[in-house]
Amino acid sequence: MLSNFVETDVVIIGAGPCGLFAVFELGLLDLKCHLIDILDRPGGQCAELYPEKPIYDIPGLPEVSGQGLVDNLLKQIEPFAPEFHFGEMVTEIERTEDGAFRVRTDTGTALLAKVVVIAAGGGSFQPKRPPIAGIENYEQKSVFYSVRRMEDFRDHHLVVVGGGDSALDWTLNLQPLAKSVTLIHRRPEFRAAPDSVNKMFSLQERGEILFEQGQVSALKGENGHLESITVKGPNGEVDIACTRLLPFFGLTMKLGPVAEWGLNLEENLVTVDTEKFQTSEPGIFAIGDINYYPGKLKLILSGFHEAALMAQAAKRIVNPDARVVFQYTTSSSSLQKKLGVI
Amino acid sequence: MLSNFVETDVVIIGAGPCGLFAVFELGLLDLKCHLIDILDRPGGQCAELYPEKPIYDIPGLPEVSGQGLVDNLLKQIEPFAPEFHFGEMVTEIERTEDGAFRVRTDTGTALLAKVVVIAAGGGSFQPKRPPIAGIENYEQKSVFYSVRRMEDFRDHHLVVVGGGDSALDWTLNLQPLAKSVTLIHRRPEFRAAPDSVNKMFSLQERGEILFEQGQVSALKGENGHLESITVKGPNGEVDIACTRLLPFFGLTMKLGPVAEWGLNLEENLVTVDTEKFQTSEPGIFAIGDINYYPGKLKLILSGFHEAALMAQAAKRIVNPDARVVFQYTTSSSSLQKKLGVI
Repeated sequence: MLSNFVETDVVIIGAGPCGLFAVFELGLLDLKCHLIDILDRPGGQCAELYPEKPIYDIPGLPEVSGQGLVDNLLKQIEPFAPEFHFGEMVTEIERTEDGAFRVRTDTGTALLAKVVVIAAGGGSFQPKRPPIAGIENYEQKSVFYSVRRMEDFRDHHLVVVGGGDSALDWTLNLQPLAKSVTLIHRRPEFRAAPDSVNKMFSLQERGEILFEQGQVSALKGENGHLESITVKGPNGEVDIACTRLLPFFGLTMKLGPVAEWGLNLEENLVTVDTEKFQTSEPGIFAIGDINYYPGKLKLILSGFHEAALMAQAAKRIVNPDARVVFQYTTSSSSLQKKLGVI
Repeated sequence: MLSNFVETDVVIIGAGPCGLFAVFELGLLDLKCHLIDILDRPGGQCAELYPEKPIYDIPGLPEVSGQGLVDNLLKQIEPFAPEFHFGEMVTEIERTEDGAFRVRTDTGTALLAKVVVIAAGGGSFQPKRPPIAGIENYEQKSVFYSVRRMEDFRDHHLVVVGGGDSALDWTLNLQPLAKSVTLIHRRPEFRAAPDSVNKMFSLQERGEILFEQGQVSALKGENGHLESITVKGPNGEVDIACTRLLPFFGLTMKLGPVAEWGLNLEENLVTVDTEKFQTSEPGIFAIGDINYYPGKLKLILSGFHEAALMAQAAKRIVNPDARVVFQYTTSSSSLQKKLGVI
């Protein structure tokens, strides 16, 4: 017998905004959920890539940060007490004899559920590691690939590497906090928004940041604590004080094990219908950025809609004999009881 | 020449939440919108039927009132300065020779647009009028079919008629404000949530409300100002002081002129595809509660998704030669400029 064996109605792979909202829609229909995410906390890309950046296109929320949206969704699903398995990656989905699914993770968790919902966003996304010798020794101590908390950069000698929006945005946003900021890019041209580039150059003119053309060729420090870096540019090598390094070399979105589960795919996305958002395997659904159908837009608000329609279909699989009456939270006391508001 | 002639990119019929959010998605793509609504203000059913009631299923908004949601959406679309035509009903949509649409309203407004979006909810919805002689003379003065502002009922002798959720909810919610509350229903059994019915009966036991079985047979008052009503019940007739009457006899959703525009319909709903949410007439789209496709749920959040996909298709009609790059509000400075946040 496995010690961490779980039986539930629905296993949701991915605890980003769509996975979280799926808990709400499934909860209204009395379905219990377990969520699995390779990250160490809920929120997916929102919390990982832009926790402090504002999002403007969530309907009814004129401006909300990535983390703010995640916090709101966590509050919204609280009444349904979902169970989270963080830091785990699903490695195997296997259909049992009675048509349910056995889901296993890389840490040995095994779950049995009648429905599986893939809400894995871009898959297991990983920042691209820059080709600098020994960089892995400094990761998570001095070298970061995203900004989780701006405070972690306060009073540091910050070096940002890259020429895209992330590099420019964080150069500008962290400049007021850091002790010093150096931006490094191998060319004097940038892919980032012209407006950000102009702002960066005017900060440089005022001496508030440094821009160095070139590439990072070496890191110096001890026990993961960076002290300086060497930059190789058109005019030779310079050493720059550096206690925090933020290299933005892009992200690799790896579909990961999802690709191995025998589902129909289209350019690394899982194809679904638009009635139930079900994959080619009955009982396995895909919602959010990971799915594809004609017209698909990778918008969070679309994932919310997909979650709602998926939930209706999931209910019919989990409780095939239940009579499901479509109800509104505004008027149904039975839904309001589930939400704990009456 | 018509004096109130308007030329724009998109005419949106209906200024409920989906029509409002369509302005946002179209605005991000630089399309200008005019909205037409038979009500006298934005918000549709949200503002008309439950402005003060909480909604719990808008993703990322754990609890918001109908009016609160409308206010948030109005704030969100402010940067796009949509133009509203309130108190007008679209009576005619006609295709021009060059494939655009001429839209006319019952007050004589004429609009020319390349795209028409029907976001008319349940159509022009009307409360059912109870069969009581002369009731029309008291409407909007003493007789109301919805509660716009709870304050309008403070210190009144309120009579609520009906046995469903609306009747019971408003009996309970207005009891603390009103001078007296009488609930009238023709039977002692209720369709409303058992919990509300129990609460009502315990208020009755404590003498805080009155329940009368029977039907309203006559109204007494002058110049639209109600003074009392007569209730005919199993034990004869009683007169009850009444300065505010709230009869809940259900709503009739009338599709209205939409039915005359030659669009494919299914049970009074406009059938659309799920890629663009386009009707059987190219260039005419339908989003929100008024449309139908397999899996359709009449949820506000679904209308939001439909608005986003519709906007992409509308853009290709209005600017067929424009290269549309799909962008995110979180990372695109060009979208952020349109929103006025940078």
